[in-house]
Amino acid sequence: MAQSSKRRFKTCTIQPRKATARKTKQHAVGAVNKQSSNAILADLKYRLSEIYDLNAAGSVLTWDEATYMPTGGAVARARQSALLRRVAHERFIDPVLGSLIDRLEQCANRLSADDASLIRVVGRDYEKAIKVPPDYVARANAHGSASYNAWIRARPANDFAAMIPFLEKTLDLSREYASFFEPYEHIADPMIDEADEGLTTASIQHLFAELRHELVPMVRAICDQPPADDTCLHRSFAEAAQLGFGLLVATHMGYDLERGRLDKTHHPFCTKFGPGDVRITTRVRENDLGDALFSTLHEAGHAIYEQGVNAAFEGTPLGSGVSAGVHESQSRLWENIVARSRPFWKHYYPVLQRTFADQFRSVTLDIFYRAINKVGRSLIRTDADEVTYNLHIMLRFDLELKLLEGRLRVKDLPEAWRAGMQAVLGVTPLDDRDGCLQDVHWYVGSIGGGFQSYTIGNILSAQFFAAAIKTHPEISSEIAGGRFDTLHGWLTDNIYRHGRTLTPQEIVDRAAGGPMTIAPYLAYLRKKYGELYRLPSRH
Amino acid sequence: MAQSSKRRFKTCTIQPRKATARKTKQHAVGAVNKQSSNAILADLKYRLSEIYDLNAAGSVLTWDEATYMPTGGAVARARQSALLRRVAHERFIDPVLGSLIDRLEQCANRLSADDASLIRVVGRDYEKAIKVPPDYVARANAHGSASYNAWIRARPANDFAAMIPFLEKTLDLSREYASFFEPYEHIADPMIDEADEGLTTASIQHLFAELRHELVPMVRAICDQPPADDTCLHRSFAEAAQLGFGLLVATHMGYDLERGRLDKTHHPFCTKFGPGDVRITTRVRENDLGDALFSTLHEAGHAIYEQGVNAAFEGTPLGSGVSAGVHESQSRLWENIVARSRPFWKHYYPVLQRTFADQFRSVTLDIFYRAINKVGRSLIRTDADEVTYNLHIMLRFDLELKLLEGRLRVKDLPEAWRAGMQAVLGVTPLDDRDGCLQDVHWYVGSIGGGFQSYTIGNILSAQFFAAAIKTHPEISSEIAGGRFDTLHGWLTDNIYRHGRTLTPQEIVDRAAGGPMTIAPYLAYLRKKYGELYRLPSRH
Repeated sequence: MAQSSKRRFKTCTIQPRKATARKTKQHAVGAVNKQSSNAILADLKYRLSEIYDLNAAGSVLTWDEATYMPTGGAVARARQSALLRRVAHERFIDPVLGSLIDRLEQCANRLSADDASLIRVVGRDYEKAIKVPPDYVARANAHGSASYNAWIRARPANDFAAMIPFLEKTLDLSREYASFFEPYEHIADPMIDEADEGLTTASIQHLFAELRHELVPMVRAICDQPPADDTCLHRSFAEAAQLGFGLLVATHMGYDLERGRLDKTHHPFCTKFGPGDVRITTRVRENDLGDALFSTLHEAGHAIYEQGVNAAFEGTPLGSGVSAGVHESQSRLWENIVARSRPFWKHYYPVLQRTFADQFRSVTLDIFYRAINKVGRSLIRTDADEVTYNLHIMLRFDLELKLLEGRLRVKDLPEAWRAGMQAVLGVTPLDDRDGCLQDVHWYVGSIGGGFQSYTIGNILSAQFFAAAIKTHPEISSEIAGGRFDTLHGWLTDNIYRHGRTLTPQEIVDRAAGGPMTIAPYLAYLRKKYGELYRLPSRH
Repeated sequence: MAQSSKRRFKTCTIQPRKATARKTKQHAVGAVNKQSSNAILADLKYRLSEIYDLNAAGSVLTWDEATYMPTGGAVARARQSALLRRVAHERFIDPVLGSLIDRLEQCANRLSADDASLIRVVGRDYEKAIKVPPDYVARANAHGSASYNAWIRARPANDFAAMIPFLEKTLDLSREYASFFEPYEHIADPMIDEADEGLTTASIQHLFAELRHELVPMVRAICDQPPADDTCLHRSFAEAAQLGFGLLVATHMGYDLERGRLDKTHHPFCTKFGPGDVRITTRVRENDLGDALFSTLHEAGHAIYEQGVNAAFEGTPLGSGVSAGVHESQSRLWENIVARSRPFWKHYYPVLQRTFADQFRSVTLDIFYRAINKVGRSLIRTDADEVTYNLHIMLRFDLELKLLEGRLRVKDLPEAWRAGMQAVLGVTPLDDRDGCLQDVHWYVGSIGGGFQSYTIGNILSAQFFAAAIKTHPEISSEIAGGRFDTLHGWLTDNIYRHGRTLTPQEIVDRAAGGPMTIAPYLAYLRKKYGELYRLPSRH
């Protein structure tokens, strides 16, 4: 998962300015000349830099909690993380900061383009942040830590009952968060807007309905055929070699290890403490080669994005990826469109065969390629193939909405999950471990706004890749040679380096040549899986 | 090294109250009744807890910097660490906090013994802290990080020249720190007082002269004899097995891994983020069994102390070890008096032989025991034996004083080091790597007050151990059986659990039955090394 999917309670970023609270509270504003605008800008950037650093310190604590912290450290850590987030939030909502923004808005025409973007973005963020009391930030963070630590124990124990009180409180906190942004059209809108500026519950429901309409018959057609044989992925693979291979590929793709590192966690994630320190985590299963490999490359995709943001934006809200959906487009692009493609493995399969000689001696590239692209009705989202993956997301999105709307009680979630899986994917988990306990998202303190970004990411990944290929048709043959420079360069120029200077919509418009649309994604799936399986003709 | 040796710039703790600045600035103080004293106490503890947590977060950042941070993270990390320390310091010197302390001092007779201690300790700390500007704290911390990162590269490159500008700034910062506490008798006094409350440059010089008078002839007598054979320690030992053996012993001694962990760093240290998270680090050399093992046990000694502090003191200045010297007494007690003793190895040598069967098959316990207690004129302090170790410390202490007094220039340090080593130990390093670049202390941002604690620790370790044995003579036979409960229990009761509720002098008086004295330490050395070597008769 990208750091951005946890961003709501962690940083003070993103979002359009709807309220005018600041305007009514602001200090008297006089004319701002060039000299004083420079001084005001310097003051603002200094304050933003300290807020950035407090949040970055909080992220270090979160990373440590997930990687190396001994169990005895949990109580103090929850308190310490919450404190840092609260102090950062308190500093961000300082009226003096609002006044600096106001004064700079008045002379925006005299600012550089980047500084004008900064004022626009920080102004939006500020308007949102002042609606959220510092006490709430501390409570939500402390609860998120406590809930996460409970989930780490509850999931392996298949103990959903233990999570009910945590999840009920999470739901309350999510509703409380939404209430700060009333009036809204739908209670999930504030959370969605936080993750994916410009989107709403209604627009996502429309998008998902359109996509579901195409995917369901595709899944049915594929699953009616004999399943691909993926036993070659389920032999025994030494952990160190798995981690080493994944990291090797990630560095070839462009992940810079002088500014990053890989560790193991329960749930893979990417986190950033500054442009020089963007870390990823993965998990390893000895008998499942795909788990660590594709998790590593997924998180590396997030990290490559963050490492590519213009370093000059460090310490300001401009210095990160633009939205959760655009972030997921990069993790999914590198994980799937690149690293599950036939050209990619033309180069890397011989490397993998040398790494795991015994396991792959008698496995052909074609068998391996089919194995890593096996489509099936499976239980675990993170293990799901590209075709069924979005159905997993849609289930979660629907359940989130029902929980938030009050149409589903927390205690009834396991049953609703089972019914939903049966309806959408035709399989039912035997226990909650493989059911509603499987994803960390609801157990780190937020319900709503955390899942839709993955499907948006899938859709955008195909749009961006198609646009890159259109400009640079040589990318495919480069990938087949284990080279990613042209692709990485195009993504950096069109997406990464901009940070948040453009809106998500502007990024998509400029990079993909038009607004978000599912056509390129469906074309990608039809072409790739049409070669692997018989598909129904388009209707 | 103990966290306490870096405490000066890292936390807001320790020290007697000399000034009356607060009294003159304080708010008007009225009568404080029982009910309001409880409320004031709660307010004070809440504020102290947040300050504690900010410093703990800073320590997490420091730990990460030393263990896992990629090189690209250094610049942002220095800024982020400095910010946390500065914010903690700013909160601690808040006049409101001073006013709360004043009001509670007036009703100290109505407080519990622990709360009365808290008010006494926090009052002392406050009086010292308000002399130090927040800006200084940030500057000193940022410089410490930058200097540490430069040292990591400069030491292996034997590049003292690269460290000169850092060290000159460090010297300036150390002098500036001392200046906040003028008037003083000696410029090193404020730093020494910070580390070892109650001691002064003069008192340590007197102590060291007394000890040197005894040690020099002892070293000469031993080194005139044929050296012990320690080749058995310099075979090849797999890193994982070295770490595993050290950690096994540490846990037997009482280090609780549910509240701690071991990692590798350039320079071993112990750090605490709360009573539930006290971590140690070590370094490993494949061809030197003693390095990782005794470093691990040294740091475990610090950690066992910190884990033993009454957990009720968490979040207040009472919740840590009482002084650097008393802290070192525990690292040196576990490392040397216990883990370099013959009874200890009677139990553990067979375990070690099973761990490294090839290396120790033909090595007897006696040969091994002599190897780990080999006395020699060596270059590296951390590798030095118990007899020569203090001469290394005295050299550093003398050089620190000369630097601070302005009698030695930074650029002349390598030559002064070589001359000092020749005079004190009769050996001269061939390069600065094994000379004045070897210890991290001067390169993390402070000169003065960082070394004397080791020798004080050696002296006290013998006093404490003798007192424990006097009460519980069975301790020796328990150690010979791999059991440490009685010793650990005595140390917990007499030292650990008290945290900072007593002064260092009170701890020594109560636990050792009298003030610090070198007699038990000399008796220990004479007995142990008299059995291993011929020693001159006492004069």
